[in-house]
Amino acid sequence: MPLFNDLGITEANPSAARGYSTFGGGYGEIKGLMQASSYDGVMTFHAVSPLDAHPYGSPIEECGEAQTCTLIERASAVAPSLADLSPEAHASLLMCIAGEIEAKRESLIETACAETGLPIARITGEVTRTVVQFQLFADLVKTGRHLEVVIDKADPNYSPAPRPDIRKFNQPLGVVAIFAASNFPLAFSVAGGDSASAIASGNAVVAKAHPSHPNTCALVETAIKAALTKSNLSTDLFSIVQGTNPEITHWLASHPLISAIGFTGSETVGRILIDVAAKRERPIPVFAEMGSINPIFISDSAISERCEALAKGVVDSALLGSGQFCTKPGLIFAPDSADFYTAIKSHLASLSVAPLLNGAIFGRYNDAISRLTSIPNVEIVPGVSTDKGFGVTPTFFFTDWQTAKSHPELLDEHFGPTAVVIRASEDEYCEIAKGLDGQLTSTIHATESDSFVELIKILAGKSGRVLWNGFPTGVAVTAAMNHGGPWPASSSHTTSVGIDAIYRFMRPVAYQGFLDSALPTPLKDSNPWGVPQEIN
Amino acid sequence: MPLFNDLGITEANPSAARGYSTFGGGYGEIKGLMQASSYDGVMTFHAVSPLDAHPYGSPIEECGEAQTCTLIERASAVAPSLADLSPEAHASLLMCIAGEIEAKRESLIETACAETGLPIARITGEVTRTVVQFQLFADLVKTGRHLEVVIDKADPNYSPAPRPDIRKFNQPLGVVAIFAASNFPLAFSVAGGDSASAIASGNAVVAKAHPSHPNTCALVETAIKAALTKSNLSTDLFSIVQGTNPEITHWLASHPLISAIGFTGSETVGRILIDVAAKRERPIPVFAEMGSINPIFISDSAISERCEALAKGVVDSALLGSGQFCTKPGLIFAPDSADFYTAIKSHLASLSVAPLLNGAIFGRYNDAISRLTSIPNVEIVPGVSTDKGFGVTPTFFFTDWQTAKSHPELLDEHFGPTAVVIRASEDEYCEIAKGLDGQLTSTIHATESDSFVELIKILAGKSGRVLWNGFPTGVAVTAAMNHGGPWPASSSHTTSVGIDAIYRFMRPVAYQGFLDSALPTPLKDSNPWGVPQEIN
Repeated sequence: MPLFNDLGITEANPSAARGYSTFGGGYGEIKGLMQASSYDGVMTFHAVSPLDAHPYGSPIEECGEAQTCTLIERASAVAPSLADLSPEAHASLLMCIAGEIEAKRESLIETACAETGLPIARITGEVTRTVVQFQLFADLVKTGRHLEVVIDKADPNYSPAPRPDIRKFNQPLGVVAIFAASNFPLAFSVAGGDSASAIASGNAVVAKAHPSHPNTCALVETAIKAALTKSNLSTDLFSIVQGTNPEITHWLASHPLISAIGFTGSETVGRILIDVAAKRERPIPVFAEMGSINPIFISDSAISERCEALAKGVVDSALLGSGQFCTKPGLIFAPDSADFYTAIKSHLASLSVAPLLNGAIFGRYNDAISRLTSIPNVEIVPGVSTDKGFGVTPTFFFTDWQTAKSHPELLDEHFGPTAVVIRASEDEYCEIAKGLDGQLTSTIHATESDSFVELIKILAGKSGRVLWNGFPTGVAVTAAMNHGGPWPASSSHTTSVGIDAIYRFMRPVAYQGFLDSALPTPLKDSNPWGVPQEIN
Repeated sequence: MPLFNDLGITEANPSAARGYSTFGGGYGEIKGLMQASSYDGVMTFHAVSPLDAHPYGSPIEECGEAQTCTLIERASAVAPSLADLSPEAHASLLMCIAGEIEAKRESLIETACAETGLPIARITGEVTRTVVQFQLFADLVKTGRHLEVVIDKADPNYSPAPRPDIRKFNQPLGVVAIFAASNFPLAFSVAGGDSASAIASGNAVVAKAHPSHPNTCALVETAIKAALTKSNLSTDLFSIVQGTNPEITHWLASHPLISAIGFTGSETVGRILIDVAAKRERPIPVFAEMGSINPIFISDSAISERCEALAKGVVDSALLGSGQFCTKPGLIFAPDSADFYTAIKSHLASLSVAPLLNGAIFGRYNDAISRLTSIPNVEIVPGVSTDKGFGVTPTFFFTDWQTAKSHPELLDEHFGPTAVVIRASEDEYCEIAKGLDGQLTSTIHATESDSFVELIKILAGKSGRVLWNGFPTGVAVTAAMNHGGPWPASSSHTTSVGIDAIYRFMRPVAYQGFLDSALPTPLKDSNPWGVPQEIN
């Protein structure tokens, strides 16, 4: 999923992430429209409507370095007030944030639709998901279970040595920097899963707004600040940083008071962030969720049993959100079946998609389609073009495994409404799977007569989530969800979706030999908050 | 805790970690004795006895690049056999390893004492701890609790969207590279906490033996391979790599089949490993446990109440293991008390310590003492010298906070039997604590009349473990232990001691929409292994 790539940072030119000097090179890509301009010495930029590629809304001020640092310092100064909340008060805050976002539903839908070009139904669902995420974390936080209290009472007979009284629980880190994704203007933006889990674990947050939907971000910031005020907490606990200047990324990631980074975006920018974080005087963890091709493997018997439904499912999943989901299935391995191809073509011809999110994604999509189109032995299947704004032509490619192997670009992630369908034999699936990079998801479509024991095992070793007879788009926000996976799917062993995302932004602290009166509340024998205590 | 620093890699010369070309510069530091030599084209090195600085044992072959890669590839090929074990079979393996190490107790004690110069009682305790670590992991693994199974059954009414059946559990990573520490020749060496937790989580392990105790490492390898054979598993699941060539670190850390790194050593080498890991085509996590100064803050009332006991406790803790523990208290903040200083001097004069572990540590210790000795306004208090081999003079330094602030080297970690006692007022403790780096431990010595609410909070924010009226050396291997902390104490939010260390080397994998028959055993409704399943 591109993020700062939207701003013209490419693998070939990672230094474009630094310095205003790259303005020309970097920003030119965005059709010249999101380019920052200056009046009265204040740098500003505009949102751009993907529907007509014209500016949307009022000019937005670029956040400078001093202002970014001030926001971080203020957040750090008040962070302990969040860390000290009782589970009940903390859960109330999360419910209050959910309520404030819900209260802005209408204006959020209007603004986000205008800035992203995504349909109302999609944005409506995203508002709900964003609200539900805070509610789910409130449910968890209220129990205190996430504190993972363990109490080992003193034991003079313990082996290998007598044991003093030791107790530990999870504590927040301080201030977390969150980088909003372009493709989920609410559910993975400044109040998305990353921010919600960071706040739920008791951290202050400074979030980089995505310049593709800055007005939506500003509305969300207002909602969260209102909830903080209603909860008698400082509004400095949550702030957003607006801007198109890639240097902002460095100001945030390298600030000594930032304790961890949550990021959803491209592998290129993920690597830049990891690099910046590792070069700090005190390196910090980066929880980056990045690229994935999300392969689907279809069995012979599945094609025979439900060719039409599979074709429809594959096309719908690849075109959902105009193909701008991190879980978009980009590679479909299937037996040679004329019926399957015909059904794909036919369904593709019946659908149109919303324009892409911004000019950079638009430009890269068209470049990729043009490059793939020039590869020999590839059948190009265009869908219904959308001409307005950043509208594109959804495009499927049909080829065989031999061709795909010799043209690895066919196997790369291409953001947007495209997928590559590769003719291959079931016998080859295990070898193909062994060659895959890390994935957020891998999918098998089969029937009860199939087993694929070996293939399942290989895919599980490569993926964060393995699906059977499903489609990877549509990530359930639930306890058993895992949204992550080996590199480049993510940079850690954690999930960024579901309640376990909360554990990214806490760390255990052990207390040894303390009097009960001096212990933090969750560790006291009297357990005034009634949190679960594992006592040994 | 130095590791490869022992091989002459310094912050000023990190490139010394690369290439045989650095042989002269790097290896000369180790008194010329551990230097690799070549006969018949085979590079070899010797262990060195710290007791007389002379070679110990037979020449040991340096592991070359091809051999290192072969060990990793073989481990990768058989890793699934470990991952597939039932909890019961897996626990039996761990108990069998414990048994084989126990069976070698006598030869391990003899060899480790000769190679490290550490006293028999210490090594005896380490054998026990090493055995107990495997037993504790066996107890955990047998329950299946570490798999953290979560089952979300399909729910058509789930909000924000209908939920498919999703189930997840923790799976091993594949092959983990472990770097043994010099200062715990058993409990944090090739079968120490890192290897034990990696094997307990179902990973194959390739461990870099520390050249300070290569014969001990070889004995341990034999024990583990014997246990694998008795358990009908391939001996390729665990191997060690011997050598003094810093390039070995790179071969291991950059090999594409290595999935994670466990490391205990210096911040310098920790940074090198993190850098190598981040620059891989597929970056991997590095769980590095590095430096810590382990400050102790003593209250006025504590000094008044138990001056003698505190002085004895501080000196004993700083000199334990000849001051070569990662939890050694290096900075003691105390009120100005002539009695306290007198008691420290008197106790220091009554103790002698074993020689340091190797020539590099010996050289750096003497350099550090000589540099600190030249700082004005510092009282130097030497203890009892040990002249033989790598023997040194334990040395305490007394100074005031003003002097320490203007000479930051006084506040650095110095490996070996030394500590700096700093006169400061209780009122200054919070400000002093705020300026600290991340710590494995921080300690307060006080009485019931003290509260130190603010100081405890600041120290908890900087440390992995906070102690009240205790001493940080002697890390209990127990559920509530946390051995880690903000950088440079560690590079992650995990513990390297205690059963929670197991979670470093696993990652969750979710299975969506699977038929029960195709699910991995721990996720099946029938739950044949009887593992704990959280069912929603």
